[in-house]
Amino acid sequence: MNGNQNIFDDPDFFEGYLDLRSGRNFNDLLEQPAILSLLPDITGKNVLDIGCGYGINCLQFAQKAEKVVGIDISRRMLNVAMKENSDHNISYLQLAMEDLDRLTGPFDLIFSSLAFHYALDFGKLIEDCARLLAPGGILLFSQEHPMTTAAMNTDHRYVKDENGNCFFKVADYQSEGERHVRWFVDDVIHQHRKISTIVSTLCHNGFVITDCVEPKPDRKAIKQLPALARDLIKPSFIIFRARKGDNHADNT
Amino acid sequence: MNGNQNIFDDPDFFEGYLDLRSGRNFNDLLEQPAILSLLPDITGKNVLDIGCGYGINCLQFAQKAEKVVGIDISRRMLNVAMKENSDHNISYLQLAMEDLDRLTGPFDLIFSSLAFHYALDFGKLIEDCARLLAPGGILLFSQEHPMTTAAMNTDHRYVKDENGNCFFKVADYQSEGERHVRWFVDDVIHQHRKISTIVSTLCHNGFVITDCVEPKPDRKAIKQLPALARDLIKPSFIIFRARKGDNHADNT
Repeated sequence: MNGNQNIFDDPDFFEGYLDLRSGRNFNDLLEQPAILSLLPDITGKNVLDIGCGYGINCLQFAQKAEKVVGIDISRRMLNVAMKENSDHNISYLQLAMEDLDRLTGPFDLIFSSLAFHYALDFGKLIEDCARLLAPGGILLFSQEHPMTTAAMNTDHRYVKDENGNCFFKVADYQSEGERHVRWFVDDVIHQHRKISTIVSTLCHNGFVITDCVEPKPDRKAIKQLPALARDLIKPSFIIFRARKGDNHADNT
Repeated sequence: MNGNQNIFDDPDFFEGYLDLRSGRNFNDLLEQPAILSLLPDITGKNVLDIGCGYGINCLQFAQKAEKVVGIDISRRMLNVAMKENSDHNISYLQLAMEDLDRLTGPFDLIFSSLAFHYALDFGKLIEDCARLLAPGGILLFSQEHPMTTAAMNTDHRYVKDENGNCFFKVADYQSEGERHVRWFVDDVIHQHRKISTIVSTLCHNGFVITDCVEPKPDRKAIKQLPALARDLIKPSFIIFRARKGDNHADNT
């Protein structure tokens, strides 16, 4: 698919990832509750899930939505999705988020959980989302927090100082672009973008931002997974909810 | 004035501050060009400058605007403003940003440079700005970047690792509230707020965000003031430009 990165079809990565997604983890305890709390009413609506993975969210949406389209670049992911999370009103499609021009809308909700930090061209992605949404439609996405993607050197980023206080190392924030990250297999490529780039790109494509969340773990979640306390130092995720304006005059 | 913090009337602080503002500094080379690039056309308009300091921006605005109101908590600041930066269409007023209910609008532009990180109640401040703006009016403000205000311990925040790479220490990001900062005099109090709090507070008060900037120093600026290179590691400032929506339905 266009030479886009597809780590999810690397067998080693995939095994590790399945393992990660099956347990109590940052996504289940922190990102998912936060993003789902911003979900609009999708009763009878058309939903697109970009980077749907193995389709957990698609199956949730399918209970109320009229139609759900889940796209992912990974055939392995979609095989799991079709086996475990099918429904009569869900279509799974192998498609990179760089290839949204192959889809036709309109959708009432475009949803994406933790995929947009892989997007090679964020401007085009948001432009495509605007085109695919009905007027008043909602774009709801989470991605790695730009503080997390900033540093080019990702070794030992949580550090204790001489007083035992833990902090996180931010560097290279102003240099947008590729970041090579170790995640199960070496050299997963994330795209670092500034928060201001994300916000402005949404605004300049006719979106009205309605919510922004940097999820904070509560005591209960930290009790279930003590490593979540790290997210008190700096957030792992950022979530935006934006409404497609009726016309571009909305955003001038 | 309500017991609000007024460091600017501390004589030691004030001398150091005058000195800082007079030279080539982060504000002149980084924050001011960025915020002024987002200024709307103010020809014949009414402008409010919150935390106007000694009135440099007010005097600039007065060349085109119909009327400029500059408010500041500090009598010393306003004395300089009235002496050095007066014009027939500028009114300077000693007023804390916590007391905006004493003003009557409507204004076409509310401008604020590097003051909102002192606001005790950001929700009330934004609510007041929405009330004081005409429909379609613009709120344009800069403040310290939340990455900058995050850590409770502000000692030695720029650090070099064993490879000589410089990074910035972020901590306590999820804990909003007072931060005691050393700045000329000890114990200047800033208010740390998450980016998501700033964005959501704007959205939930009927503002349509139209731009966000985290200013990045260019080569020329770094040549004039080498310390600006720090801002390649992480931004010192964040700037938002938002339009007051015609009605609250704009933001649902």
